[in-house]
Amino acid sequence: MSSDSPIVQTARAARQASVALQSVTDKQKNDALLRIKQVLAERKTEIFEANEIDKKVGYYGAVRLAQEQVALGKLSSSLYKRLDITNADKWDSILSGVEDITHLPDPTKQVSLATQLDNDLELYRVSVPVGVLLTIFEARPEVVVNISCLALKSGNAVILKGGKEASHTNAVLAKVIQDALNTLPADSSIPKEAVQIVETREDISALLDLDRFIDMVVPRGSNSLVKYIQNNTRIPVLGHADGLCSVFVDKEADIEKAQKIVVDSKTNYPAACNSAETLLVHRDLLNSDKFISVATALLKAGVSLRLDTSTFEALAQKVDSSFKDKISQATEEDFDTEFLELTIAVKAVADVNEAIDHIIEHGSKHTDCIVTENETVAEYFMARVDAAGCYWNASTRFADGFRYGFGAEVGVSTNKTHARGPVGLEGLVIYKYRVYGNGNAAGDYGSGKKQYLHQPIEQSNYRI
Amino acid sequence: MSSDSPIVQTARAARQASVALQSVTDKQKNDALLRIKQVLAERKTEIFEANEIDKKVGYYGAVRLAQEQVALGKLSSSLYKRLDITNADKWDSILSGVEDITHLPDPTKQVSLATQLDNDLELYRVSVPVGVLLTIFEARPEVVVNISCLALKSGNAVILKGGKEASHTNAVLAKVIQDALNTLPADSSIPKEAVQIVETREDISALLDLDRFIDMVVPRGSNSLVKYIQNNTRIPVLGHADGLCSVFVDKEADIEKAQKIVVDSKTNYPAACNSAETLLVHRDLLNSDKFISVATALLKAGVSLRLDTSTFEALAQKVDSSFKDKISQATEEDFDTEFLELTIAVKAVADVNEAIDHIIEHGSKHTDCIVTENETVAEYFMARVDAAGCYWNASTRFADGFRYGFGAEVGVSTNKTHARGPVGLEGLVIYKYRVYGNGNAAGDYGSGKKQYLHQPIEQSNYRI
Repeated sequence: MSSDSPIVQTARAARQASVALQSVTDKQKNDALLRIKQVLAERKTEIFEANEIDKKVGYYGAVRLAQEQVALGKLSSSLYKRLDITNADKWDSILSGVEDITHLPDPTKQVSLATQLDNDLELYRVSVPVGVLLTIFEARPEVVVNISCLALKSGNAVILKGGKEASHTNAVLAKVIQDALNTLPADSSIPKEAVQIVETREDISALLDLDRFIDMVVPRGSNSLVKYIQNNTRIPVLGHADGLCSVFVDKEADIEKAQKIVVDSKTNYPAACNSAETLLVHRDLLNSDKFISVATALLKAGVSLRLDTSTFEALAQKVDSSFKDKISQATEEDFDTEFLELTIAVKAVADVNEAIDHIIEHGSKHTDCIVTENETVAEYFMARVDAAGCYWNASTRFADGFRYGFGAEVGVSTNKTHARGPVGLEGLVIYKYRVYGNGNAAGDYGSGKKQYLHQPIEQSNYRI
Repeated sequence: MSSDSPIVQTARAARQASVALQSVTDKQKNDALLRIKQVLAERKTEIFEANEIDKKVGYYGAVRLAQEQVALGKLSSSLYKRLDITNADKWDSILSGVEDITHLPDPTKQVSLATQLDNDLELYRVSVPVGVLLTIFEARPEVVVNISCLALKSGNAVILKGGKEASHTNAVLAKVIQDALNTLPADSSIPKEAVQIVETREDISALLDLDRFIDMVVPRGSNSLVKYIQNNTRIPVLGHADGLCSVFVDKEADIEKAQKIVVDSKTNYPAACNSAETLLVHRDLLNSDKFISVATALLKAGVSLRLDTSTFEALAQKVDSSFKDKISQATEEDFDTEFLELTIAVKAVADVNEAIDHIIEHGSKHTDCIVTENETVAEYFMARVDAAGCYWNASTRFADGFRYGFGAEVGVSTNKTHARGPVGLEGLVIYKYRVYGNGNAAGDYGSGKKQYLHQPIEQSNYRI
């Protein structure tokens, strides 16, 4: 062990902290969160000073970054805003967010199966923390507080790595959290190594290899960050790289609903992963006013349309001339593009099956919607589309942990295993089986010997 | 698409079959399984002929394999037996196993969350098939039937790759299953591409890269097979490479229970992954007859003991001289070794914390047991040990899907996400969110606008 590098020591300390966290009660976890809130408030000046440094450095960095991104055709001018935690709304929401987490139910110690295997042999499946989380994020320093508190509430240790543009703020926030844990009363003890921060890319590269200590990676940031992580670790990654959501307007759609849903899905917050990027239209609508009215609603909302040949032809002759510069012919890539701005790709399909095929081929398994009044077609679409969210007559923008009522959102997952869609605290737990015996041997059971009972245990008789 | 290689076409066909499987009812799946059973029975002669070829080829192959394994110190002489499916018991159990699966509850279409988001906006979380499975296995050809039927029952498409020692049998079994699917009545239609088989290592290498089509890999075979797969794919792997289980005999153990549990955990079926490989003993027991009696029980059962210094010294002077050749000093590697035979590593620990630390450092998160009469110590151990199974006073050999009452076992997982421990059909499903709206826009909700209800929906009012 003496040969461990500093980063292996960090990972090992996180593992040891996670063991200690297994025995911590919900009250102890909530006490720790309230203590964190208190110490954050007490040390506001120190935190804001660090944030000022980052904003100055980050601002000049942002100028460079902006120039690079302009060259790439993707201008992002919001870095300064994302770095800033000193405006009153942001700071208050950080503090209240910590307390909000104390009001959520403890996701651990939940029994999901209880079976009497034999008279003196009981089986329980009980939720437990996943163990050690590694969170890699960019820009927004409040993630340090938010993810640390979600990790603690679910009994996980966490190693954090933020972007270097917020390194001063991140370091102070992590230090404040550690100091808060360090000053808990002895009967609420949580090791300060439950929350640790690392700073360099080399650290991340090393941590992504340490699957013996780290159980899950939770990236919060750009597509390229998530993709890099997915391609460079065997540790399970909870997250999504893309959010390529589609809305399919069926021939039996109520066009008023279609207008409302399509416009909201595209324009409510175009930079979000649950915004629509593709509009699929049943081709029977092209020769009526219905398609024109949906397209015009988008155009009026400021959306540019990239249209396939048949939708372009249907629209070009009828659209109001003031919108001519907002419509253009789509390229193939447009149907694989997450625009994240007021642009949408539009395609006509022959029927619901072609819509489903298009979504399976081009979608990102995030959230897809059908607009129709035909329940059979809607159920068929929702059964066959392979996405975390399958919606009937509702905006894709509802795909969000708070809107779903989860109280907290760890992230949105497009994985096919473990946790899918908006992920609350449940995504940070797994289960273990506990068996309570009385000296039982498996060799005593079988043909001509004892038989298993396999009876469910009544909840009032649970040992847990 | 015309440029797709044959293996990409196979994966794409599996994906398309998995889409069709989303709409299949439980009755249709059970009808398909019963049809498979029927066609297997009808074509028994053809299947047995293929098996005879494999057994002849496999036998000569087995001789070579055995010689190589002798050289490596691991003699396996059971390949012939594992290849054979023609003895009456094996064949009958294959056929009855197919029918047994029809009696299991459908793991899909289960609602685990139902929330009224607003009066005309409902959210459901519903279990769905994972999608496309890739199963890689060795020797036992009955895996073709077993895993195909588990996949179909859970609504998944599957691509199978067996060992070349059973290639003739595997190919015929897969063909029979496809033919059975092909001859279903039209109203029970399941595409035959729901079950496909591939044959070469190159195919596997290509499939492990196709994470856009394949959702989960389920390896069934040796540690080296599982490790190879884990290290060569980004697709989630459901399984375990190692089964390094420990039994800790606490100072407050009932020694009769300890003897029974330790002997059963080690000797009931030493080649199984849930057999004990390490015995940890509280050091307070070394100076009493208690440790000697547990050690003697193991020795009488034919077990060789690899003892650390203090347990060796405690035992060497007192053990019956007839067992002298069964005890030896342990090396460090012995505590990281899955013996899979009648050998166990033995170590003294100062207390339950040292036992826990040892298990965390050397265990494989499979199944670990504490023998004690002290409930507080037992709960502490079960909370802190990070294993799929944490047992109090019961043999580690109970860690098994059938013993747990699951009816079927897909495999045993030592993962920390998705599914853990013995995995039944539940491990082959995930969930999706279905939202039922009426033209709802997210922009209509918020401060000063509509508010979310977030009320649970009564089960009797479910739309699903």
